[in-house]
Amino acid sequence: MSVPATQKQWLIEGQDNDFKGLVYQDGPIPKVGENEVLVKLSGASLNYRDLIIPKGMYPFPLDLPVVAGSDGAGEVLAVGSKVTTWKQGDKVVTLFNQGHQFGPISDAASKSGLGGVLDGTLRQYGVFNENGLVRAPANLSHVEAATLTCAGLTSWNALYGLKPLKPGETVLVQGTGGVSLFTLQFAKAAGARVIATTSSAAKAEKLKQLGADFVINYVEDKNWGETARKCVPDGIDHVIEVGGEATLTQSLKAVKFEGIISIIGFLGGTQPKDSIMEVLSRICTIRGVYVGSKAQMVEMVAAIEANDIKPVIDQKVFTLETAKEAYEYMWKKGHFGKVGITIE
Amino acid sequence: MSVPATQKQWLIEGQDNDFKGLVYQDGPIPKVGENEVLVKLSGASLNYRDLIIPKGMYPFPLDLPVVAGSDGAGEVLAVGSKVTTWKQGDKVVTLFNQGHQFGPISDAASKSGLGGVLDGTLRQYGVFNENGLVRAPANLSHVEAATLTCAGLTSWNALYGLKPLKPGETVLVQGTGGVSLFTLQFAKAAGARVIATTSSAAKAEKLKQLGADFVINYVEDKNWGETARKCVPDGIDHVIEVGGEATLTQSLKAVKFEGIISIIGFLGGTQPKDSIMEVLSRICTIRGVYVGSKAQMVEMVAAIEANDIKPVIDQKVFTLETAKEAYEYMWKKGHFGKVGITIE
Amino acid sequence: MSVPATQKQWLIEGQDNDFKGLVYQDGPIPKVGENEVLVKLSGASLNYRDLIIPKGMYPFPLDLPVVAGSDGAGEVLAVGSKVTTWKQGDKVVTLFNQGHQFGPISDAASKSGLGGVLDGTLRQYGVFNENGLVRAPANLSHVEAATLTCAGLTSWNALYGLKPLKPGETVLVQGTGGVSLFTLQFAKAAGARVIATTSSAAKAEKLKQLGADFVINYVEDKNWGETARKCVPDGIDHVIEVGGEATLTQSLKAVKFEGIISIIGFLGGTQPKDSIMEVLSRICTIRGVYVGSKAQMVEMVAAIEANDIKPVIDQKVFTLETAKEAYEYMWKKGHFGKVGITIE
Amino acid sequence: MSVPATQKQWLIEGQDNDFKGLVYQDGPIPKVGENEVLVKLSGASLNYRDLIIPKGMYPFPLDLPVVAGSDGAGEVLAVGSKVTTWKQGDKVVTLFNQGHQFGPISDAASKSGLGGVLDGTLRQYGVFNENGLVRAPANLSHVEAATLTCAGLTSWNALYGLKPLKPGETVLVQGTGGVSLFTLQFAKAAGARVIATTSSAAKAEKLKQLGADFVINYVEDKNWGETARKCVPDGIDHVIEVGGEATLTQSLKAVKFEGIISIIGFLGGTQPKDSIMEVLSRICTIRGVYVGSKAQMVEMVAAIEANDIKPVIDQKVFTLETAKEAYEYMWKKGHFGKVGITIE
Repeated sequence: MSVPATQKQWLIEGQDNDFKGLVYQDGPIPKVGENEVLVKLSGASLNYRDLIIPKGMYPFPLDLPVVAGSDGAGEVLAVGSKVTTWKQGDKVVTLFNQGHQFGPISDAASKSGLGGVLDGTLRQYGVFNENGLVRAPANLSHVEAATLTCAGLTSWNALYGLKPLKPGETVLVQGTGGVSLFTLQFAKAAGARVIATTSSAAKAEKLKQLGADFVINYVEDKNWGETARKCVPDGIDHVIEVGGEATLTQSLKAVKFEGIISIIGFLGGTQPKDSIMEVLSRICTIRGVYVGSKAQMVEMVAAIEANDIKPVIDQKVFTLETAKEAYEYMWKKGHFGKVGITIE
Repeated sequence: MSVPATQKQWLIEGQDNDFKGLVYQDGPIPKVGENEVLVKLSGASLNYRDLIIPKGMYPFPLDLPVVAGSDGAGEVLAVGSKVTTWKQGDKVVTLFNQGHQFGPISDAASKSGLGGVLDGTLRQYGVFNENGLVRAPANLSHVEAATLTCAGLTSWNALYGLKPLKPGETVLVQGTGGVSLFTLQFAKAAGARVIATTSSAAKAEKLKQLGADFVINYVEDKNWGETARKCVPDGIDHVIEVGGEATLTQSLKAVKFEGIISIIGFLGGTQPKDSIMEVLSRICTIRGVYVGSKAQMVEMVAAIEANDIKPVIDQKVFTLETAKEAYEYMWKKGHFGKVGITIE
Repeated sequence: MSVPATQKQWLIEGQDNDFKGLVYQDGPIPKVGENEVLVKLSGASLNYRDLIIPKGMYPFPLDLPVVAGSDGAGEVLAVGSKVTTWKQGDKVVTLFNQGHQFGPISDAASKSGLGGVLDGTLRQYGVFNENGLVRAPANLSHVEAATLTCAGLTSWNALYGLKPLKPGETVLVQGTGGVSLFTLQFAKAAGARVIATTSSAAKAEKLKQLGADFVINYVEDKNWGETARKCVPDGIDHVIEVGGEATLTQSLKAVKFEGIISIIGFLGGTQPKDSIMEVLSRICTIRGVYVGSKAQMVEMVAAIEANDIKPVIDQKVFTLETAKEAYEYMWKKGHFGKVGITIE
Repeated sequence: MSVPATQKQWLIEGQDNDFKGLVYQDGPIPKVGENEVLVKLSGASLNYRDLIIPKGMYPFPLDLPVVAGSDGAGEVLAVGSKVTTWKQGDKVVTLFNQGHQFGPISDAASKSGLGGVLDGTLRQYGVFNENGLVRAPANLSHVEAATLTCAGLTSWNALYGLKPLKPGETVLVQGTGGVSLFTLQFAKAAGARVIATTSSAAKAEKLKQLGADFVINYVEDKNWGETARKCVPDGIDHVIEVGGEATLTQSLKAVKFEGIISIIGFLGGTQPKDSIMEVLSRICTIRGVYVGSKAQMVEMVAAIEANDIKPVIDQKVFTLETAKEAYEYMWKKGHFGKVGITIE
């Protein structure tokens, strides 16, 4: 495949309320260095984080202007002269923090996120260090594979990064965001029980189809944490907390002694009023999860292939050209599953 | 339920070639101590170990005469005055080494096996310390539950006792013995891939129905270790080695670097000729597995319930009265799955 | 040794501000059951918890009246007819939650604490289930051994219960309470670096003698969390948070990405104002630690013996008769290390 | 520092009995690639492996001719344009298998060893991928740091790679080779007990100075495995087996139930006669250890610094020019500790 001189890309030039700073333009195709890989990107997906960067609400370091998007998947077009781990034709997916290879994240690695500090994936071609890519699962399309970068890996890290999930344990997921759905799928594939919360009967139905053992409507049942606690005799081992209004109060009620509440995001809004000292009276653990390492992502890919897990993609898929509509669509919260973008 | 003064039981009085020392008789019903539990046994099952004890081939400590059988399940009839963890009506299953509560097995605990050192399960009523029982999975019959004591727990220990199995990893099981079938079921429930070996197309079919991803006929393919190695791109993480003639040579070929070969039994016969130094050239680990602890069994029960795992029971089920026929049936190796015994 | 008919004991009869409900009296010597052990108690020690139970400030379940004290050590005088793990003359120490044998604490086990729900150690003789005792380290006196029950085991659980401490990691301890000093000693024995905080030069000197690599005066340096963070290049892996006024704010500054803050107690006073969402921006974990299991205590005893660790005992040691003075002495906070009580 | 056009180096050109194929010559200084680092090597050390490569006895893949030596340490002189993790002046040590970054070793990584497949360290200047280096401990000289590459990391992997050593456990080391001495030092720093075997009173004395709790003379005590077993009440958790004549038989006697025998090398000679089935009757694990990953080496460096561990270097240190004498000296086995080489 011949590589053109320029490409289409979305650049975050500035921050404002209406995604005006998100600009579609022609950009260069970076030169492939000795240890680098040129990837024809064919799929991408969006995260809540991607929305709040151009909106100016992202509380972590950025280096604007930057090519938007962290989730990307495609095929290797060319490799540098010293690359040993990839060859032309390999299907790959991007690692979010390019420098986070294994173990706890370092300060430097925490500042190597795609689409924030480093140029991201909303473009046709990307060049990455060979360590900044992971083999894509053979069973997934490019758009599906792209969803692994953030939502998939965050979920895997929550379940396996501190106290690995075991068959027979119980996991509680909140709502139908990307990390929650991945966690539901991973946990079921791993032989765990899953309790899911949602706000509508229609979504409840979908959650059950994905394997949820119990679904609780948190609108009807304000005290759903207590309800969840009673679903299973041995208690809830892992809670995936999405950080919404008052959810933590219920998570603290739900989790068993020595269980873990993984906080994977924040939905802005009010801060939880619960005291940190609750970890003592509830004898539990609360952990902040920030995506994950390449070592973890390699394990996750193996699990996805072995169990033929298909990431849940919202029915409305966008193109690179219409990517800004994807941002607006997701901001209005009408989606179920990941919002995907195909790239030609 | 009223408890009679005596009960029927199988006592191992002596050792010989033809199970003559295995005697059906009337025995006492032990008195329930303060921290003990009286169990009406309703199900039992046999292990290879159970066969070779009366045959005089068992290489570990025994204390004859002893009531035969280690696998047992039933219902709590009465509890001692200081028992806090059980109440009448609870469904329970026996722990093999009564003293093995958690962590590595101690010397003393290794000498507390039912049906060898302590009176076992081939009787109508048993009395056990409250710590020597585990809650039976709610989804199993008594005979099914009984199979967990040895075969189930050995399999769980192999998969989770040293380097816990993760979704996406690959497990190799040999043949269709109890531990091999449990491992197949546990590994599939846990999101792993399974490669199974067998000697016939009929058994291969059954293995596939149980979820095996790959089945290799070891009669037709003498070099099945090499074949297995090629089945999966990332290699085989766990091998459950049953210790048959020349199987270890193939297991060493099959296992990936830093994978584990768990040796779970021995089928008598010739010793493997492979040198222990092979662990170095193969960069692998070989582990001897001796059943497991109560801590592990509790975890296993949770996994069995959450995944509704049904132990594979041979179609021919025996009664307490005909138990000696079960010994003979199993010795001739015509069974598939565990040989079960119902107890009235 | 002959056992008398009655013994001296401290009973918590009621709750008030001045330890009036803590009464010294003659009590019975419980009969030894079949699986129980009679222990001649010779040493005890106090915890903050022990003080606030008679003061009515303890937020967990109690069952008054109850013999006070949870920390106890002594010698086995007699064993029940079915006891297999102890014999006369064995030196033992009490397990805090008598039912917490291994794994996560259960609801039932969380209600089996000595000196709160079950009769405790401030008496001459105690009877315990054989599983409620642990072998005392050979290198310790009875008073020293007694300090392991709560402070020792809480510290061990903090360091090894979730993410085991490794040589080369760094631990931060606050002040000179029992858990903090144990953690300093355990961490140094395990090859870790230790940063300690304190309020006086005299205590700083003692902390250095115990092996602290860095000592920070938190009175002089209000921003000691930041200071601590800069002491070591790789960051602080474990913080032992005692829950004092504003300490958590500093702990959050100190801990490295993916480090753990173990909250081991509360000193009453104001609740921390820090939001739980800080675990996300700090990418860290906060864990509530509630003493520990018998499995952990057995490991701890091995470590204490191998490294000849001597618990730090305050210079003023009390007797059973003067035990109420010990409560008052500790309440006034003049002590350094554990407040010990010898029992004749 | 200016870099000359050529350098001195030892090239393995052929294999023979007398190190004739090991040739001292002028070689080029490789060009620094974009992700590579130029290192001025100042220290090296030898391993048994280094001796048997030119002797033609090494059973693993080689790619001759190759610059000899895998252990190297020095200072960064220059970095490629895309290097982010190193800068001029950094003190570094080489990673043995350059491709082994984390997790189990892959097939490809197992073929990336320095001084065998890739050009090694017996030269003045080396160029390495930035991932193929690790920060050298601040407390070590270049020669001391160099010994970490093979012996240090193999020891660390044995102790922490499968079942991490805990304070209070017991480790058995055999003889006074490099891995055995590192294990002694690491285990003592980590709060474990150490039993060492040796053949002379003089060496026994040195082992005790290094902290060994027990030393057994294996010449005088042929049944030293049994003796070792009796040294400690709780048994031996880790045995570091060097693979000498009949040592394995004793190691199997020494190790406790569920302990690990790590086989770290082979001294040629006869294969052990012990059957692999011994792992079952001894209920133990035997593991082949092949150096280790970068992730492990980073942890090891932290432990070395925190505990100021000084690798044991033989009193006779060689220079690059006299390196062949170092090979001969070590082959004759007169050394104690690592044989070091300084490089100008």
